[in-house]
Amino acid sequence: MLSVITVDEALKIIKEKFPTGKTKTEILSPDEALGAVAAQAVYSAEPVPSFARSTMDGYALTAEDTYGAGESLPAWLKVVGEINMGECAEKPVKRGECFRISTGGMLPPGANAVIPVENTEEDNGMCLAYKAVSVFENVTKAGDDIKPGECIVDRLDYISPAVIGLLASAGIDKVTVRKKPVVGIISTGNEIVGLGEPLTPGKIREVNSRMISAFCIENGCETIMYGTVRDESDVICDTVKKAAEECDAVVISGGSSAGAKDMTVKIIENMGSVFAHGLAMKPGKPTIIGEINGKPVFGLPGHPAACFFVMEIVIRPLIGMMTGRHVERAAEFFELGENVSSNHGREEYLCVKTDGSIAVPVYAKSGVMSVICHSDGYIKIDRNCEGLKKGEKVKVCLFRR
Amino acid sequence: MLSVITVDEALKIIKEKFPTGKTKTEILSPDEALGAVAAQAVYSAEPVPSFARSTMDGYALTAEDTYGAGESLPAWLKVVGEINMGECAEKPVKRGECFRISTGGMLPPGANAVIPVENTEEDNGMCLAYKAVSVFENVTKAGDDIKPGECIVDRLDYISPAVIGLLASAGIDKVTVRKKPVVGIISTGNEIVGLGEPLTPGKIREVNSRMISAFCIENGCETIMYGTVRDESDVICDTVKKAAEECDAVVISGGSSAGAKDMTVKIIENMGSVFAHGLAMKPGKPTIIGEINGKPVFGLPGHPAACFFVMEIVIRPLIGMMTGRHVERAAEFFELGENVSSNHGREEYLCVKTDGSIAVPVYAKSGVMSVICHSDGYIKIDRNCEGLKKGEKVKVCLFRR
Repeated sequence: MLSVITVDEALKIIKEKFPTGKTKTEILSPDEALGAVAAQAVYSAEPVPSFARSTMDGYALTAEDTYGAGESLPAWLKVVGEINMGECAEKPVKRGECFRISTGGMLPPGANAVIPVENTEEDNGMCLAYKAVSVFENVTKAGDDIKPGECIVDRLDYISPAVIGLLASAGIDKVTVRKKPVVGIISTGNEIVGLGEPLTPGKIREVNSRMISAFCIENGCETIMYGTVRDESDVICDTVKKAAEECDAVVISGGSSAGAKDMTVKIIENMGSVFAHGLAMKPGKPTIIGEINGKPVFGLPGHPAACFFVMEIVIRPLIGMMTGRHVERAAEFFELGENVSSNHGREEYLCVKTDGSIAVPVYAKSGVMSVICHSDGYIKIDRNCEGLKKGEKVKVCLFRR
Repeated sequence: MLSVITVDEALKIIKEKFPTGKTKTEILSPDEALGAVAAQAVYSAEPVPSFARSTMDGYALTAEDTYGAGESLPAWLKVVGEINMGECAEKPVKRGECFRISTGGMLPPGANAVIPVENTEEDNGMCLAYKAVSVFENVTKAGDDIKPGECIVDRLDYISPAVIGLLASAGIDKVTVRKKPVVGIISTGNEIVGLGEPLTPGKIREVNSRMISAFCIENGCETIMYGTVRDESDVICDTVKKAAEECDAVVISGGSSAGAKDMTVKIIENMGSVFAHGLAMKPGKPTIIGEINGKPVFGLPGHPAACFFVMEIVIRPLIGMMTGRHVERAAEFFELGENVSSNHGREEYLCVKTDGSIAVPVYAKSGVMSVICHSDGYIKIDRNCEGLKKGEKVKVCLFRR
């Protein structure tokens, strides 16, 4: 039986024992891949834009024809055609000639610049250019955004709306992304009744497995629910084995009595190994961290609030590693509204309500969920810290969404 | 024809013209409601916990029986039974009696406190209590988390994993939430070819409608794609009319030439009203803001990067209003890595790459998406600002997810 470890030790174990190299991948269209993480780099086969385009309404011409032109001495060019967006010039532009062109229009062969319409006059088939333009002025060249062979999405890039736009512009219709990790959730306890079942005296409703599942889904995982099993070694053992085969990670919720925890530890030890039995955090002490076949297996506290904080502090970074996504909460600094004492030798997490620049602690009995739901975030009190003073700057991890 | 308005004016128009009172609602199970916003408050019908529970392994008893007890003079209590989690005492506890009880176990009638096992000894059916306990010590009373009739979810609360846990603990299986707003997306332009279609000379791929759709979905909307329609008044008119009937908001993408913009403005004006034709922001000037039947209708710039920033700055807050969700990007302060000039009289948005505490601007030709995709965020330069100095603190809205 191992002793209690600190949160930092737990995070180190998670980082070292659960490398993410084995992540499964899938090939999706860019639209379907929204929110996923690229598992391979993507290279463009073609230049974007694929042709030189005008950035103004005006006349496409040879820049050299306008050299020396000015207000008093315009250059004269013969208008030989018109190019609208989506069209293609029928013939090249020769020296002394020009094409009318719209914004986004394709430059005719031979043209190397566009003079904006406001610097010209058109008279009887001739364009008077009152200004000199330089080569490539008012022109986006082919490949200005993307060159052929250029890497447009890196491995581990998040497929954002902007990336979907970039992939579309390069005509890419498939992208290889990390598959969502699958978390198996097992609820144990003879006292648990399912939602919809009658709540007989002494029984409590199943809370944690639903919260854990929502937490995993919100952070980019899929979940498989293995239901509520009785606190019996054989039954738990079979279910854990099945989940460890079918999923990328397993979370066992419940069994908050010392006896049930010991049973869970033995089950994990028999099939794999246990790294921690007890975490030096408050709330969250009765936590088990282990592995079966290299897959992370957690036993979470039965108190919902403790379960919540272990997910926040320990499982959130694991999900970040597995998904490759940024899963950290937004955090801001606030002034502490009152003194906070602490000398537990355990890292402590305390809910706060924020008001302007002030954060005020909200205390609650162990396991009380309503306090978390009605708070704005939480602060961490280091295990060596003996308390925080009113007015001190504290970092608040924010619950807002 | 209206003139160009500032971004602040645009945001004010959006706030005033598009009240969110008409949001549709739907009734979902808490699991299905993850990520939605409550449209009605939820009240608990029952107390949580539903009975007084022990928070320790120990003995349930009448506190008064332990008064005066100490290390040298224990109180003697007759052990009359045992209560495990999920069980119910068969009989009440009388004065001078106690029940063995596990953590989470239901207190027998008559008991008002629990003495922890470590402060006792059991001998021949008697419990020796070496410590006095006060009334309700080591007990969670019925209703300590939630009282009957208490509001547990407020209107506009985000249905988070913790809220799902709270709803489950109160046995609530249905919640009324705001329906996802539906955004209709119309792409216009004779030069646009769909993904998978051949890219003939002069044509460009459809980029914006896909990016807009992904943006809306990422921020909690559903989208309906009305495809790419030709730049012809009749066709656009019919499609806009259909979209304004079927959706909560309409976004028209493309038509970046002055002529096409004017046509879009006329179409919106004929069916509703136009509030702005042109936005004093860079990039993003050729933006139209209007309404049809009180529903927001936008014409977005054709340049993808300009389209992106109008979504970021103008459409993001509208989606926040419609969904009730917190949709703002996380922002942090950085030191500007080099001088930035600006005197356009237009609010300017500039991509930056961050490195440690430094943010360095990344410049790009108009419409270039790769710069956005390869940046870490953007800064805003106020329209009255004449430039920013190297070393100045700037707020960076971060792209990371």
